[in-house]
Amino acid sequence: MALIVQKFGGSSVANADRIRNVARIITETREAGNSVVAILSAQGDTTDDLISKALEINPKASKREMDMLLSTGEQISCSLCAMAIEKMGYPVISLTGWQAGIHTNRAYSDARIKKIDTERIQTEIDRNNSIVIVTGFQGINKYDDVTTLGRGGSDTSAVAMAAALKADLCQIYTDVEGVYTADPRLVENAKKLDEITYDEMLELASLGAQVLHNRSVEMAKKYQVKLEVLSSFANKPGTQVKEVVKPMEKTHVVGVAKDKNVGRIALVELEDRPGIAYKVFSLLSKANINVDIILQSIGRDNTKDISFTVKRDDAEKAKEILEEHKSVIGFKRIDLSFNLAKISIVGAGMIDNPGVASQMFQALYEADINIRMISTSEIKVSVLLDESEAERAVQVIHQSFFDE
Amino acid sequence: MALIVQKFGGSSVANADRIRNVARIITETREAGNSVVAILSAQGDTTDDLISKALEINPKASKREMDMLLSTGEQISCSLCAMAIEKMGYPVISLTGWQAGIHTNRAYSDARIKKIDTERIQTEIDRNNSIVIVTGFQGINKYDDVTTLGRGGSDTSAVAMAAALKADLCQIYTDVEGVYTADPRLVENAKKLDEITYDEMLELASLGAQVLHNRSVEMAKKYQVKLEVLSSFANKPGTQVKEVVKPMEKTHVVGVAKDKNVGRIALVELEDRPGIAYKVFSLLSKANINVDIILQSIGRDNTKDISFTVKRDDAEKAKEILEEHKSVIGFKRIDLSFNLAKISIVGAGMIDNPGVASQMFQALYEADINIRMISTSEIKVSVLLDESEAERAVQVIHQSFFDE
Repeated sequence: MALIVQKFGGSSVANADRIRNVARIITETREAGNSVVAILSAQGDTTDDLISKALEINPKASKREMDMLLSTGEQISCSLCAMAIEKMGYPVISLTGWQAGIHTNRAYSDARIKKIDTERIQTEIDRNNSIVIVTGFQGINKYDDVTTLGRGGSDTSAVAMAAALKADLCQIYTDVEGVYTADPRLVENAKKLDEITYDEMLELASLGAQVLHNRSVEMAKKYQVKLEVLSSFANKPGTQVKEVVKPMEKTHVVGVAKDKNVGRIALVELEDRPGIAYKVFSLLSKANINVDIILQSIGRDNTKDISFTVKRDDAEKAKEILEEHKSVIGFKRIDLSFNLAKISIVGAGMIDNPGVASQMFQALYEADINIRMISTSEIKVSVLLDESEAERAVQVIHQSFFDE
Repeated sequence: MALIVQKFGGSSVANADRIRNVARIITETREAGNSVVAILSAQGDTTDDLISKALEINPKASKREMDMLLSTGEQISCSLCAMAIEKMGYPVISLTGWQAGIHTNRAYSDARIKKIDTERIQTEIDRNNSIVIVTGFQGINKYDDVTTLGRGGSDTSAVAMAAALKADLCQIYTDVEGVYTADPRLVENAKKLDEITYDEMLELASLGAQVLHNRSVEMAKKYQVKLEVLSSFANKPGTQVKEVVKPMEKTHVVGVAKDKNVGRIALVELEDRPGIAYKVFSLLSKANINVDIILQSIGRDNTKDISFTVKRDDAEKAKEILEEHKSVIGFKRIDLSFNLAKISIVGAGMIDNPGVASQMFQALYEADINIRMISTSEIKVSVLLDESEAERAVQVIHQSFFDE
C-alpha cells in the first residue's frame, strides 16, 4: 500500500462541483489501494472576499491578523471536501495546519515550515485508512499563532508533508495537464513532458512557467520527494519531476519559457575604473534586490555602460538607491525600461551541447527578432527582447526545437 | 483596574461599520482604565453562507466537519475586529477557541465548556494591557478537534471566560437596550429593568424573551458572574443581572413573556387506573422530551384525559412514541395542537403574593381571552391560550401590572 500526498489548488476547489470532483479523485486513489493525505488551497473567491473585508477595515492590518483571517479559507475548503467524501461513504477527517502539526518560523504571511509533527495524521491513517484532508498554505509558530506560507504556500505544504510522511508520491493537481515544452496558450504544438528533473523544473518555475512554485521544487529536490504535476480536470498522467530522467531522443531542451516580470536598468557613461560593478551590485544586494542578466559595454572615451535586469517591482527602488549613491558610483544618467521580456530555453546538460544556444539565436534571427541581452547557465540560455515580440519568439524557438 | 469581558453578537459585527463601532466600545472601555477581553460571534451573513455551502455538498455532513466549517465564522469576525482596533492604535490580539484555551467535552455542535486555561490570555493582558479578542461559540475537545457550543454559545463563552478570569463584570452587548418588562415590539409601554435576579432572568430566558440564553444565565448564577445586558448601538446603561436586587416598589412582577414554541398533546379517554401518568411521562423522558404544563381532567365513565405541552419540534416525536405504546398505556386517541402560545409573568417571591396570579387572570378575563391551561411555580405564572390572542394577552397583562 502506497502513501500518496495530493495537492489541489484554488481553482480545483472553486465550487461545489469541483469539490465533488476532488473528492472523486481522492477516493479513487484510495480505492486503488493507497492511503491519501490531501492538501487543499482556499476557494479562490473566499480569499478575495476576505481580503476585501480586511481592506475595508484596515488597509495596513498587521500580518499576524491577516494570517488569522486568511487561514480560514483553507479550513472552509477542507471541511467542505471532507463532507463530500463523507457522502461517498469513506472515512475522512479534515485538519487545520496546527492540528496537522505543521510548525513554521515566526514570519507572518511568508512563513517557512520548520517541521511537521505527523503523529495525528499517522493515527488517522492507521485507523481505518482514513483519508486526511489538510489545510495548505498555513501552520503555527512557536507562540501558537497561525502563520501563512506566502506565495506557492500550498505546493510547499504538500511537498513538506510528503517529505515528513515519507510518502511514495506527491501529486500536484492543477488546471494544466502537466509541464509543457512551452505555454500551450501561446504555442499550438507545445508538448506535455512525461518527465523533467528538479533542476530543469526550477529553471522553468523561476522563468515564469507558473506550474509549480520554486520553493516547493527546491524542497522536493532536497528531500527527494517524487513529484507529479497533473490536471484535476483530465483523467490522465501528468509530468513526473525527479532527480534523473531518461534523456529525450533528439534534444536536450525541455522547454521554452517567457518571463515578462523584467525591468532593465542602464547606467550610462560610467567612469571606467575598477570596483564600479562591485559597488553597484553590493548596494542592490543589501536592499535584497536580485539582479539577473548583466551586460557591460566595451569602454570608450574612458567611460562604459552597464545594463542589468531586475524583477519589475524592484526596478524603481533599484533606481532610487543608485541615484542616492550617484556621486560615489559616478555615472551620467540612469535609464529604466519595462517593455522587455526574457525568453529562455531550459535543459539539463545543455552546456555540453553548444549547438543549442546557436540554434536558438538562429531561430530568432530568421524571424527578424532583435536580441537585447544574453545570459547562459548550466541548464538554460536566456535572451532579453522587446515585449511586443515575446510571444512570436517563443513560437519560433519552440518550432525550431520541437516540431518534427 | 477592572477586568471586563464584553460579548458582541452577530448583529453587532454584521459589517465593517458595526465592527468599527464594536472597536470603539472596546477601546473606550480600556481608555476608562480597564482591561478588556471581548468575545465575538460570527457575522450573521458568514454563518448563513457557510451553512448553504455545506448543504449544497452534503446535507447530512457530520457534526465534526460542520463545527470545523462554522468555527471559521468567528475567526473571521475576530481578526477583522482586531484589525479595526489596530487602526485605532491600541495593542490587540485575536485568539481562536483553542488558542484561548477553551476546552469542551466531545459533543460536536452542542459542546459544553469543561475548563478554560487562561494562561495565554493572561499573558497578553499582562503585556501592555493588550485587548484580547476571542472567538465565541467554539472550543476544542480532548482530541484537539474544534467543537461548537450550539445555540447561545457565544453568551456561554463570555460568561465562562468571565468566570475563569474572575472578571469584575461580563457585558453582553446585543441589539436591545436591556431586559424589558415585555417585548418592546409588542408592548408600547414596556420598561427597561435596571436590575433582575439570575432566577428571574432564567425564567424570562426560557420563556422566549430571547435576550440571554439560559445556559449562560445558569453559568453566571453558578459562578456568581455579574452580568450586564446592553445595546451596542445605544450608549447607555443596560440591565444588571445578579443574585439579589433592590425590590421594585409596586410589584413583584419583573416581566411578561410570550413563548410560541409550544405543542400541546392530548391523550383522550385514557383508562383511569394508577401508574398511567408515570408511564406516559417516563417514556417521554427517556426520549429526552421535556414536558411543561400538564393538565389532567376529572375522570368520567372510568376514563380521563391528559393534556400536556412540549416544545413544538418535539411534538410529532412525542406522538409517535405514545402511539407505539398505545396498548400499554391504553387510550382511545391522541390529538396534537400547535396554534397555542404560552404567556407568563415572572417575579421573585411571587408565590408569597397570591394576588399576582388572580390579577393576571382578571386582566385576561376583562379582555375576553380564554385560558386553556395554567401552570405556576416559585417565580412565575404561565397560561396557555390561542396563539391568535397571544399578543393582545401580553399587552393587557403588561398594562395591568406596569401602567401607572
